[in-house]
Amino acid sequence: MRYPEPSAALLSHLSDRLGPAGFSTDPADLAPWLTDWRRRLTGTAAALVSPADAEEAAFVVAAAAAEGVAIVPQGGNSSMVAGATPAGIGADGRACALLVSMRRMRRIRSVSVADNAVVAEAGVVLADLHGAVEAEGRRFPLSLAAKGNATVGGLIATNAGGTQVLRFGPMRALVLGIEAVLPDGSMLRGLAPLRKDNRGYDLKQLLIGGEGTLGLVTAATLRLVPAIGERAVAWIGLRSADDALTLLRLLEDRLGEAVESFELVPAEGLALVLHHIPDTRAPLAEASAWNVLVEAVSPAGAVPIAQKLEAALAAAIERGLVEDATVAQSESQADALWKLRESLSEAEARDGMAAKHDIAVPVADMPGFMARAAAAVSDRFPGARPIAFGHLGDGNVHFNVRAPANSDGKAWFAATAADVSRFVHGLVTEAGGSMSAEHGIGRLKRADFLELTDPAKLAAMIAIKRALDPADIMNPGALLPLAEERARP
Amino acid sequence: MRYPEPSAALLSHLSDRLGPAGFSTDPADLAPWLTDWRRRLTGTAAALVSPADAEEAAFVVAAAAAEGVAIVPQGGNSSMVAGATPAGIGADGRACALLVSMRRMRRIRSVSVADNAVVAEAGVVLADLHGAVEAEGRRFPLSLAAKGNATVGGLIATNAGGTQVLRFGPMRALVLGIEAVLPDGSMLRGLAPLRKDNRGYDLKQLLIGGEGTLGLVTAATLRLVPAIGERAVAWIGLRSADDALTLLRLLEDRLGEAVESFELVPAEGLALVLHHIPDTRAPLAEASAWNVLVEAVSPAGAVPIAQKLEAALAAAIERGLVEDATVAQSESQADALWKLRESLSEAEARDGMAAKHDIAVPVADMPGFMARAAAAVSDRFPGARPIAFGHLGDGNVHFNVRAPANSDGKAWFAATAADVSRFVHGLVTEAGGSMSAEHGIGRLKRADFLELTDPAKLAAMIAIKRALDPADIMNPGALLPLAEERARP
Repeated sequence: MRYPEPSAALLSHLSDRLGPAGFSTDPADLAPWLTDWRRRLTGTAAALVSPADAEEAAFVVAAAAAEGVAIVPQGGNSSMVAGATPAGIGADGRACALLVSMRRMRRIRSVSVADNAVVAEAGVVLADLHGAVEAEGRRFPLSLAAKGNATVGGLIATNAGGTQVLRFGPMRALVLGIEAVLPDGSMLRGLAPLRKDNRGYDLKQLLIGGEGTLGLVTAATLRLVPAIGERAVAWIGLRSADDALTLLRLLEDRLGEAVESFELVPAEGLALVLHHIPDTRAPLAEASAWNVLVEAVSPAGAVPIAQKLEAALAAAIERGLVEDATVAQSESQADALWKLRESLSEAEARDGMAAKHDIAVPVADMPGFMARAAAAVSDRFPGARPIAFGHLGDGNVHFNVRAPANSDGKAWFAATAADVSRFVHGLVTEAGGSMSAEHGIGRLKRADFLELTDPAKLAAMIAIKRALDPADIMNPGALLPLAEERARP
Repeated sequence: MRYPEPSAALLSHLSDRLGPAGFSTDPADLAPWLTDWRRRLTGTAAALVSPADAEEAAFVVAAAAAEGVAIVPQGGNSSMVAGATPAGIGADGRACALLVSMRRMRRIRSVSVADNAVVAEAGVVLADLHGAVEAEGRRFPLSLAAKGNATVGGLIATNAGGTQVLRFGPMRALVLGIEAVLPDGSMLRGLAPLRKDNRGYDLKQLLIGGEGTLGLVTAATLRLVPAIGERAVAWIGLRSADDALTLLRLLEDRLGEAVESFELVPAEGLALVLHHIPDTRAPLAEASAWNVLVEAVSPAGAVPIAQKLEAALAAAIERGLVEDATVAQSESQADALWKLRESLSEAEARDGMAAKHDIAVPVADMPGFMARAAAAVSDRFPGARPIAFGHLGDGNVHFNVRAPANSDGKAWFAATAADVSRFVHGLVTEAGGSMSAEHGIGRLKRADFLELTDPAKLAAMIAIKRALDPADIMNPGALLPLAEERARP
């Protein structure tokens, strides 16, 4: 009896805010969603609540939280384990829970080729997502049988797998950002398509695979990859599963990560399919005890990597993108080119003092950001010399600010570096970026981190830290304020 | 003054257990490790404690926890943000903290080509890790400037990046498993090289990038990739950073994920290198405003993907691995092959009732596990017919158990399926695997999950759930016990 039934006031509050499209207590509306996909459990709910956007979703959770009313989020209702069925909540089968359907939130907010990312709301159906990004020449590399029902939110809550995990990993590996409502109704806003972000606990990892128990995902930024150029599919008969595994490693050695799928089918399984499913026929002349279905995918042409690279660069030169280029003709030439990159920090240090920053913004915005930030720094700190270099493909550069030429570098650093860093970190945060792409927070960046980070995220981090380390004995002072400094309970 | 100095009893307790190689209060031993890499902060510590193995590490944390003494973990002491420096702990600069060095834990516990995984202790230096896996024909695809100092534990605690993030992601994408001591001294044991595991909150994600504030990593299972076959390196001059980004997408469209590095260098940075670093020379005839260093890597030959696949299969046939194989010669043939795989569940359902399981074990053990489990199930449940199929490359199959032939399938299912599932889940757990590779726990698998999961993990999950959702309003009954059923505070 721990969960109360929602009060009449709560229900009318929700009905007023969400309107008839977003709120129903009609048993006919609820019925299709109260039984799980595999028809193993049937639950009860006081209402079907369908927010139209993130603000309505936050409203619903906050309203439920105020009365301690239970929420069961649901996407396509295609859970294999009844993860979205409001069963067993409240005594005597009373209709206590709010069944929160995300199916109305089905907007693709944006597709960016430059960022290789799509922002999709939680209710977007996987097959629709595939179509939307294919129209832009990209691919979302996760697929599974329920793709006509499964939604982005459900795929995240269950860390879905599918047939391309071998190459691309499960959903967790494809989620770049999440927008979610936390159980108290506060919003966790993290949709920036950052490839690198080391600002503390990666809270989205708790929501991925969290089965809706830590928050309600409202939208996500998902990783895209180039569309398929060629694919090769083979059906292979083998004597044993051991041989199948040996074959997989042989294929990977020769084809690399082009191997996207490697699906095992026993003779008995193939026989079932041939027996029960129309329009199927045996792929091989003789049945083997074990079968493997392999798919290998290549995005592009068919020449050695150096020739491929040269051809691609020739195309870029033709388009006027590139002024000049040299392709290493030997390992020692390659090493010499890498030495130029790897010596940058050392060369910079020999040249004098610099305030160093390890920043990330969305990849597509990085060229513009570097120019804007350099101008802003030069304007605010006359004579200071910004320089940016590094991992452009990740949207991560080391944006360092050198002391003015002919100045006393040490004195400048002592007097100004902290202000420069606070200023640069502020610019990055305003641009939706991360003030720590890869170095973390530690002790050196803690003050700026505490000042600039989202209060909802900080509160959640502190709560998790308290939950796992109530005495605050693990690396105190790194990342988070010391326990006695923490203002918020 | 919140942190006490360790008592004399605690220090002698540690000294007794760890011996002279693992415990020192000699200022000369401590000094090199009290100042951070960038020489910005110097701290104090009551002792340098260097556990030799995970059990000693757990002993240290438990002993410290008993007195509320602070622990600062340290690997290679190469943090860019003083993340491993015991500064600011305890009032008046008193030496309160234990500086816990992981440098003695430098064993590579195993390298498995079949699992594409290495198990390395926290103190293993990155360059040593590279060498150890190269000796086995594999590659650990993360590298950075501090590779001669940085350790596996520190790379995990800081979610390190480097020059190959573009293709392989940061450390988070390469960590398959973690062994760690939680702040209360309990061990989180998760080294099984599972590619898929959806048993609740992925706690290792909190330790990755957690900067040592949630636990002490003692070892990790890391993902390996095939060794490099060919690489191509180019230096490219461009007019703008915008053009660089456009070039990146052009290269990715033509070369796919072969593009591993894409490093931006401004004219000024290159000039600094050429000026300060000996044995460097300008790579291009004319200086451009911007430069990009590209590395593209291919693991293998240079033919179209279908030819590559055919050649690889021919080699497998020659080795006696493969009995027969067919490579699709058209898209419709490819679709027909895929249909055979995708129809398995439907064909199975048409054939009768089955207890379904979605299990993972380490990839290398899957052939053996399927045989052992099928024999055990047939032995325990006479007549029941196990069948396994699916994602062998991920170490994940759907291991289903069909009702005995000519039985009343529904009656068998009602009477026996729960016992069969509990038995199969037990076998999987005994084999170090996951009873939920991709489907999650939901409501259907909760009883088995609660019974079979590691108590330390379950307690941490409940603590996090409580911290973020104290009223337990989010999807109650899924994944975790309802709040009122939770035994442990």
